[in-house]
Amino acid sequence: MSADRLRMAGPSSLRTEYAPPNRRHRRIVLAHGGGGQLTDELVDEIVRPRLGNALLDELDDSAVFDVEPGRMAFTTDSYVVQPLEFPGGDIGRLAVCGTVNDMAVCGAEPLHLSVGLILEEGLELDVLRRVIDSMATAVAEAGVTVVTGDTKVVARGQADGMYVNTAGLGRVRPDARLALARVRQGDRVIVSRPIGDHGLAVMLQREEAFGIESRLASDVAPLNGLVGALLDACGEDVVFLRDATRGGLAGVLSDLSERTRLHLAVDETRIPLRRETSYAAEMLGLDPLDVANEGTLVAVVRPAVLDAALDALRAHPLGEHAADVGAFGSDEDGLCEIVTEVGGRRVIQKPYGEELPRIC
Amino acid sequence: MSADRLRMAGPSSLRTEYAPPNRRHRRIVLAHGGGGQLTDELVDEIVRPRLGNALLDELDDSAVFDVEPGRMAFTTDSYVVQPLEFPGGDIGRLAVCGTVNDMAVCGAEPLHLSVGLILEEGLELDVLRRVIDSMATAVAEAGVTVVTGDTKVVARGQADGMYVNTAGLGRVRPDARLALARVRQGDRVIVSRPIGDHGLAVMLQREEAFGIESRLASDVAPLNGLVGALLDACGEDVVFLRDATRGGLAGVLSDLSERTRLHLAVDETRIPLRRETSYAAEMLGLDPLDVANEGTLVAVVRPAVLDAALDALRAHPLGEHAADVGAFGSDEDGLCEIVTEVGGRRVIQKPYGEELPRIC
Repeated sequence: MSADRLRMAGPSSLRTEYAPPNRRHRRIVLAHGGGGQLTDELVDEIVRPRLGNALLDELDDSAVFDVEPGRMAFTTDSYVVQPLEFPGGDIGRLAVCGTVNDMAVCGAEPLHLSVGLILEEGLELDVLRRVIDSMATAVAEAGVTVVTGDTKVVARGQADGMYVNTAGLGRVRPDARLALARVRQGDRVIVSRPIGDHGLAVMLQREEAFGIESRLASDVAPLNGLVGALLDACGEDVVFLRDATRGGLAGVLSDLSERTRLHLAVDETRIPLRRETSYAAEMLGLDPLDVANEGTLVAVVRPAVLDAALDALRAHPLGEHAADVGAFGSDEDGLCEIVTEVGGRRVIQKPYGEELPRIC
Repeated sequence: MSADRLRMAGPSSLRTEYAPPNRRHRRIVLAHGGGGQLTDELVDEIVRPRLGNALLDELDDSAVFDVEPGRMAFTTDSYVVQPLEFPGGDIGRLAVCGTVNDMAVCGAEPLHLSVGLILEEGLELDVLRRVIDSMATAVAEAGVTVVTGDTKVVARGQADGMYVNTAGLGRVRPDARLALARVRQGDRVIVSRPIGDHGLAVMLQREEAFGIESRLASDVAPLNGLVGALLDACGEDVVFLRDATRGGLAGVLSDLSERTRLHLAVDETRIPLRRETSYAAEMLGLDPLDVANEGTLVAVVRPAVLDAALDALRAHPLGEHAADVGAFGSDEDGLCEIVTEVGGRRVIQKPYGEELPRIC
């Protein structure tokens, strides 16, 4: 029974009697992205029951809400990770956490998210349901709301199942004074947890077909709670924050030294790294320093609050393995130098770009 | 000469001597999306010279700015139009105008945009330059700034060259009182310009290979100026606004009657429609009412201000052909009925979804 025929039969109140798309369609069809009845049904049957709230349910062209005066943070990321589902997360959890974290490291309490879905014709609706379920879980963990969204469908063979864009709006804490320009000699660098797990879990999932098994799981998590705990404890003695996503810890550290034009000395033995992550990296010929993380915070703090900062982080479930890994020195060479396990020294460089495509 | 070798040779000040990507690369490679040096170069060489401003140039994880108290509008759309360039616009102009318009029809002055690019490996950098140039033009027309962005690259054969997501943040005018719940019997419906041009220009561009030529051009334009003029003239006697994008004018009109549960009577002969658009639609077997527009405003106004509203719209370059097309009647049947040229009557339905894939 087609929706069109039912629609012809009477007024709009009959719409609730339509067979929902999960009974009529098992997979995404191009018409789901046409902006017509089928798009409405997809939103009504799959998106709103999972992510719905008073603002999203308005389904207007924009979400409209009141804001108080102050500083706000606005950010966006698109997610194209392959495979869509991997140990520890999926593209939905990633899309929520990645954008929440971009706000958190600017000292912002995330408020609202937008979600733009680009779906491939033929995508199983069950996969979409799981991804949206996972978004809903991450949204609840982060304490944000999805207030506006959009769905497009592209032809079979494109978009690898789905791409997701999220944009986020947050309120910057008045006590946050995070700025690269405030970083100075003596400041300490803290890493909140073992590195490399996200990128390697995703890479190993891709290799699964080749019989490689592992217990590695992505670290993907919303960091706003952890950042909040750190700012509560140390206020403006926290001078800079970054999450070590694409480009990995190496990307953040080399950026820090390059943009501050200070020397940054890091002790390799103090960088938290799980043994299985280290093995996996070796097996794949990767440096864990270069590998993307999705729930790993890098914090620059004044030396006077180092212990308080570590205590605050370690008291939080996402920061129990937080470690002090290095400090800014007096040289103004703009280099990040790592002292290796065997006492050697090498300059950390920002990865060129090829290492890990489609990792987030 | 590789960027890596130069980088080894000295401190970061040397970076400005790198050959920019336009000299080293003519096309997008996967590494442009890796979040490493090559991503930085793409942003520095192509994006920032065209869209740069004080906020974007910070290149932080989020753009941070002050806001005044009040109501804000937040929206997002992804754009997957094919072909990327078409008469009257391209995916870049579309991505700016579409999101600006979603804010404008909520009575918001658009302030800031985010831009998320998903680029296909192999995309010519010249195409990307033209698209970003076109975004820059539209951004200037709309008076907004792009304050944050993201670039991902996917493998050859995916993403049809590029997909673009924009999200937008705007400030709702305090004098705007736009709400479907305010629509009542007697209210008039105005259409700001001839319908169907965007969808048909794009469709004809696709058919160009088959020898069909036309002078049709997309209507894609930022509507915030036109909406501003209307609100200045008629204030809260403007009760509802919508731009007639996917689903076309039929989608907006059927939504209006369905969601207000009022009867909406529309006179077909008064709907602005160019002769060449009508011919093109006939040739392609499409109803211009169903075809997407990207610069066409539908306004519901109190009958007392109908003339003032038409005057205000017609005084603006984007509204010179504005026309009063119908009115809400006393029946509470939730139907939109159109009186055809020959005096017949038919109920307008929201398109099901298949008509025009990949039109925006």
